[in-house]
Amino acid sequence: MQKTIAAISTAQGPGGIAIVRMSGDNAIEIADKIFNGRIKLSDAKTHTVHHGFICDGTQKTDEVLVTVMRAPNTYTKEDVVEINCHGGSVSARKILSLLIKNGASYADRGEFTKRAFLNGRIDLCEAEAVIDVINSKTGRLHTAAVNQLGGSLSEKINEIRDGLLSLSANLDVISDFPEEGLEPLSDEEYYNLLVRLRDKTKKLYDTADKGRIIRNGIKTVIVGKPNVGKSSLLNLLSGSERAIVTDVEGTTRDIIEEQIDLGSVTLAVSDTAGIRTTDDKVEKIGVEMSKKRASEAELVIFMLDAMREIDENDTEIFELINGKKTVFLVNKSENGINDSVKNFCADKENVIEFSVKNETGVDALNEKIAQMFDMGEISDGGGETIINERHKEALAGALESINSALKTLEDGMPSDMTFVDIENAVSKLGAVTGMSVGEEIVDRIFHSFCVGK
Amino acid sequence: MQKTIAAISTAQGPGGIAIVRMSGDNAIEIADKIFNGRIKLSDAKTHTVHHGFICDGTQKTDEVLVTVMRAPNTYTKEDVVEINCHGGSVSARKILSLLIKNGASYADRGEFTKRAFLNGRIDLCEAEAVIDVINSKTGRLHTAAVNQLGGSLSEKINEIRDGLLSLSANLDVISDFPEEGLEPLSDEEYYNLLVRLRDKTKKLYDTADKGRIIRNGIKTVIVGKPNVGKSSLLNLLSGSERAIVTDVEGTTRDIIEEQIDLGSVTLAVSDTAGIRTTDDKVEKIGVEMSKKRASEAELVIFMLDAMREIDENDTEIFELINGKKTVFLVNKSENGINDSVKNFCADKENVIEFSVKNETGVDALNEKIAQMFDMGEISDGGGETIINERHKEALAGALESINSALKTLEDGMPSDMTFVDIENAVSKLGAVTGMSVGEEIVDRIFHSFCVGK
Repeated sequence: MQKTIAAISTAQGPGGIAIVRMSGDNAIEIADKIFNGRIKLSDAKTHTVHHGFICDGTQKTDEVLVTVMRAPNTYTKEDVVEINCHGGSVSARKILSLLIKNGASYADRGEFTKRAFLNGRIDLCEAEAVIDVINSKTGRLHTAAVNQLGGSLSEKINEIRDGLLSLSANLDVISDFPEEGLEPLSDEEYYNLLVRLRDKTKKLYDTADKGRIIRNGIKTVIVGKPNVGKSSLLNLLSGSERAIVTDVEGTTRDIIEEQIDLGSVTLAVSDTAGIRTTDDKVEKIGVEMSKKRASEAELVIFMLDAMREIDENDTEIFELINGKKTVFLVNKSENGINDSVKNFCADKENVIEFSVKNETGVDALNEKIAQMFDMGEISDGGGETIINERHKEALAGALESINSALKTLEDGMPSDMTFVDIENAVSKLGAVTGMSVGEEIVDRIFHSFCVGK
Repeated sequence: MQKTIAAISTAQGPGGIAIVRMSGDNAIEIADKIFNGRIKLSDAKTHTVHHGFICDGTQKTDEVLVTVMRAPNTYTKEDVVEINCHGGSVSARKILSLLIKNGASYADRGEFTKRAFLNGRIDLCEAEAVIDVINSKTGRLHTAAVNQLGGSLSEKINEIRDGLLSLSANLDVISDFPEEGLEPLSDEEYYNLLVRLRDKTKKLYDTADKGRIIRNGIKTVIVGKPNVGKSSLLNLLSGSERAIVTDVEGTTRDIIEEQIDLGSVTLAVSDTAGIRTTDDKVEKIGVEMSKKRASEAELVIFMLDAMREIDENDTEIFELINGKKTVFLVNKSENGINDSVKNFCADKENVIEFSVKNETGVDALNEKIAQMFDMGEISDGGGETIINERHKEALAGALESINSALKTLEDGMPSDMTFVDIENAVSKLGAVTGMSVGEEIVDRIFHSFCVGK
């Protein structure tokens, strides 16, 4: 029998309600020892809620709502009891202590979700999606994670894996049971099927780039001559109601990135401190710095001043960034745009009329960038987007094995020479969903959870 | 029709589960618009839990458990829907936005509990107990608040109020319906009943001192000659696992108090910074400072060194604190106590053998102080302890009116001359439970709540 585990499942801090959760064979029995309500919880139907008091002997500990959920239709597939008590620091801790005193054990980090995985309710990449749903700071990453949680990635992975398994079975037919008269695939059929599976794998693997952008944001630099409004733009974007701003460390330790959620896309604007402080200082548009920034960026936002002539500053910057994906943001356009700027923009794509002052153009900017990076529709891709580095690596491994198998066939070798590669690819794909993965990796994954989930 | 309100009811921050709560006539209908599960929530029985997805159009927003509770057996006596979603910063906010988009309104601070009050499920002092349960930092205050939440204070108040109302009715019998032949109370009976009600009111009022100690802790100073172990004691007490330490401002703004929860009692140790830093500096046991501290304290913890002779430092300190409630803590007693200290303690009460080093004596200290301040049993007093300043003031007013009425009778005036005083007392008592209280006060009380409760 598994031990019954308990933990506080809500965040710490001031709040109206807290939840103490318990899972395991004795969950209902233990809860009954400290619950004083109209009925005994052991007599309660599954998925019902009961008002009453948690008591320590004759002393009331708190007024609560207790939810009883019986196996197997629960988060863990075990009996689950959730005690909704008052928020704050004391109630939940007192109740948790009482549960421990009455036979429950403290849950490890992620242990509820780990049980959901071990008991077969969810697979490993669905479990990993739970972390991403909780930890996501932007709506877009959250959406991708929720889709993964719903099993859409697992479905894709299993589809490819099943295809590989049937090829593998075909090899068995050839080698082990030739006498049974089952019709094996022709070499050509075998090859074509494998190509199709490779393409599917490749397509999935290629979403990892988009996944990285969803997770980390598009590496962006904002450039433009002094006083064009770079710092004001940044303040507008990061201060707008719908933006969630966080300071995250960039991939190189010495660059600070600021994540700005525009809705459909997240920008990782590097060196924003520099932008904010140097905007008014002509001497600091040092070419070297701009070069370095621009060379690392995936997106350049080039700000122009609608009322000022295009000058050598602008042309110098344009030369620097030439070839990069660029949005030309014509700021201060609320009073019209002068001819010099109009002419400069005439042969450019991705020109947006903007006004930091009037806060117009933000939606257009969001849509334009989303379009440039193929992040258009939220539902597009979604759960089929690889947002997890572990999945990306597994898919890379599977792809390598499949390509190796294809090479074998292209070299004129018989299909049963691909057996090891196919097995490898099957195993790599199984690692994503947890069908073939070591205990150590499973432990590591669940230890990145918070307690209570 | 009341508008349907919604709010996030759990604390913000990293956590496994968050709750979005909704209350009002349209709660179930609104939830149904965004819930995708096996059944429609409007078909669900009350107090049942349903698994499914919250969806924004075709896009899944999160996987959730939704609890449906139908009026009137709910927190607010209205239809209540609670959506348990993933914790973190995005899920609950997205769901709340969807509810608002579909017709719910953002709940004010404390609005759920305010509705519980306005709809007659709880009275005002039960509502106030909710805040104290959530905000309490120590187990003892939490216990007193939970008892108040259970209605034990309301019961006492109503008992006295009902008694006063029946006296008032008796006056009506005398003045308005003399012809009906109802037997009015004799003057002596009337007086004696009023004395009994006064005593009950006084007894309740007198618990406010204990209530203040429960809420703020016992004003404590730790004294003793240098190197006796004052700072180590403080570290032990505030660092021990069961202690909850918070920095709170004292009643006088220039003194910082540290609250130390010993279990049965909470100590508000003043000027702990001073204790921690000056322990080793002989020149800093300045008599004036000690005098000031000691004069304000309700409890003195006088630390002695079990292995050092009693010297003029000790006797000087003892003179300073003479007359104060004092615990004599004989520290470093792990290797025995020398005769000098034994002799000094021989005629003292409240001597405790202690060892900061071995961490022994803490329980004895807790019990001794609890006994000295009559805080012995947790269940003793409990909900009948006045822990709220507003209640204390109302009781003081009621007491004054009753005493004034008694004075009137003692002066030989007829009992109907007490009518106004009795009415006053009834009104003051009704203010505690909210029967007679202005809208402004009610608003002020609920605005001290957090959103979502």
